[in-house]
Amino acid sequence: MMKTTLAVDAGGTSSRAVLVDASGRRLGSGRAGGGNPTSSGVDSAATQIALAARAALDQAKTTSSTPPLPSGSPVVITQAGQVSDAYRRALDAHLVPLGLGPVVIEPDLLGMYGSGSASPDGVVLVAGTGSVAGRIRDRLVVREVGGAGWLLGDGGSGFWIARRVIRAVAADLDGIGPRTGLTPLLSQAVGFTPDPSSSGDADHRRSPALDTLIRSVNDGPPIAIARLAPLAFQAADDEVARSILDAAVDRLAVLVERVLAPDSDHRESTLVVGGSVLVDGLLPSVPSAAERLSSAAAGARLVPVADGLVGAAALGIRMLGGDVDDATLSRLRVDLAARATR
Amino acid sequence: MMKTTLAVDAGGTSSRAVLVDASGRRLGSGRAGGGNPTSSGVDSAATQIALAARAALDQAKTTSSTPPLPSGSPVVITQAGQVSDAYRRALDAHLVPLGLGPVVIEPDLLGMYGSGSASPDGVVLVAGTGSVAGRIRDRLVVREVGGAGWLLGDGGSGFWIARRVIRAVAADLDGIGPRTGLTPLLSQAVGFTPDPSSSGDADHRRSPALDTLIRSVNDGPPIAIARLAPLAFQAADDEVARSILDAAVDRLAVLVERVLAPDSDHRESTLVVGGSVLVDGLLPSVPSAAERLSSAAAGARLVPVADGLVGAAALGIRMLGGDVDDATLSRLRVDLAARATR
Repeated sequence: MMKTTLAVDAGGTSSRAVLVDASGRRLGSGRAGGGNPTSSGVDSAATQIALAARAALDQAKTTSSTPPLPSGSPVVITQAGQVSDAYRRALDAHLVPLGLGPVVIEPDLLGMYGSGSASPDGVVLVAGTGSVAGRIRDRLVVREVGGAGWLLGDGGSGFWIARRVIRAVAADLDGIGPRTGLTPLLSQAVGFTPDPSSSGDADHRRSPALDTLIRSVNDGPPIAIARLAPLAFQAADDEVARSILDAAVDRLAVLVERVLAPDSDHRESTLVVGGSVLVDGLLPSVPSAAERLSSAAAGARLVPVADGLVGAAALGIRMLGGDVDDATLSRLRVDLAARATR
Repeated sequence: MMKTTLAVDAGGTSSRAVLVDASGRRLGSGRAGGGNPTSSGVDSAATQIALAARAALDQAKTTSSTPPLPSGSPVVITQAGQVSDAYRRALDAHLVPLGLGPVVIEPDLLGMYGSGSASPDGVVLVAGTGSVAGRIRDRLVVREVGGAGWLLGDGGSGFWIARRVIRAVAADLDGIGPRTGLTPLLSQAVGFTPDPSSSGDADHRRSPALDTLIRSVNDGPPIAIARLAPLAFQAADDEVARSILDAAVDRLAVLVERVLAPDSDHRESTLVVGGSVLVDGLLPSVPSAAERLSSAAAGARLVPVADGLVGAAALGIRMLGGDVDDATLSRLRVDLAARATR
């Protein structure tokens, strides 16, 4: 009987599931809401993961070419953060009735890495809202640098870029920094009328536009400013924006250097890079980014990936005893990307 | 009949009130809880201000040397942030029944400045949890730089210092930064056991102490980390701490330079400095701080002040038609400081 495994990439805003067999053939895919127990809560995360899993199973069953599904497909979930016993129990309660299990939970960094490389040793760098680098040895994350949260750092992340964008615009409005094309972009996004000329007169202790900006930014949760990072990519030919993006690449390169730092025995030939800020923003906007990140990893080849789902599937296939080589990964990537656009 | 005025310095954690006559004689003092409508809410702030005012009036009435108090003493309140109509109405509702009013609300920067200088023109720099510099012309705040909140900057503030302390300790624990005496201090304050040796082994993707630190810092409200700034003053002979404090002084000097920047016509001879981080922390810990801040203000004389209450009283005395010179300020400072220690 055909052996199958269900892989889930459980992120903060969405959970994606795929059912594959031991040869790496995709049988069905599904998607649901945020599946991170820290940000969504234990029960809600387990519910969303189960919804995505059920959708993948349903799709597999309705595809005429699929033979009857076995019960007891093992599940691999890749996700960030802590894994509590309560969360494990909630997952079992939701997944066992679907004929799924046992459930293995792996770090999201391992899924992301596995989406780009079949090698047991390598480096992975992710920059989305936050940023983190990981070193993989024998298919384990042996070291992590960054990922401390926006308050303490996460250099080069979406939050980090957005904060610098806002500060550059504040300096422009206050007349103490260079004029920048970021100002009209941010004024549209946040909703103020740039009027630097009124800065510093007796009726206005500071520019009214700056007051509006400060109020708006301090009103929401701090992490919400990360949504403004793409303004820097839009204004990538502006000198101020360019220097912010350049500094972001520097910070990410430092993460890569540091995650490799403790010893000099580099077996890694691949640097897998993921996260929308890095893959959809910095790499296309900063021409030197790929080369600089690659040299930070001692010349490793850069492999951009969309997410960790292919890597989660690769972990599941190996659990079934199947082989995963770079050709398997390529096929899974193409197949899952095609599904994602439907 | 003797004319009197009630001055209130309304801060986020406490409100202090003093009743003075037109000659600057202190008749009574009082203190109550936080009186800032933004942080405490409109009604709670007005209630606390009224409690402080009533205590000052009661003390004045029970002092045998005081002649009968007039009704209708004008009130001057110095405070940070926006003033809404609802807040004005709440103040009137609480203060008019005490025989007080009309109520005038002035920026806290003006109170702080007025605590240190009787001159109509000058500069003021405050560093507590946040940081801000103001330029005073003809007894008005004509320009403000900084004070944008911890998220956007407030360089050199308590929050800014604390964030760098935590990041330096995180780098120490992670083995990617220099060892620092801040690590044992922070480990006591936050409650973790420093164990840098376990960093980077296969069981621990990062140091367990670092994990505890990251979790603890990200658990509370971001602004709460500002309480950790004094660790840097305690460790002022540690190289890492010293460089943080040095950079803080630089940032504050930049605020002063920028608030003076728009024109070069400097009539200011005094730089009043306030806020616990600056007055109780940076000035005693960094030997060059006073000189560097003074040169940022084109050689202005540095005058440290404890708070804005003396300045609020000076504003009230001027409203009564009284004169306030540097001798009046000195007398008020001594008198109010003596009261504060009781």
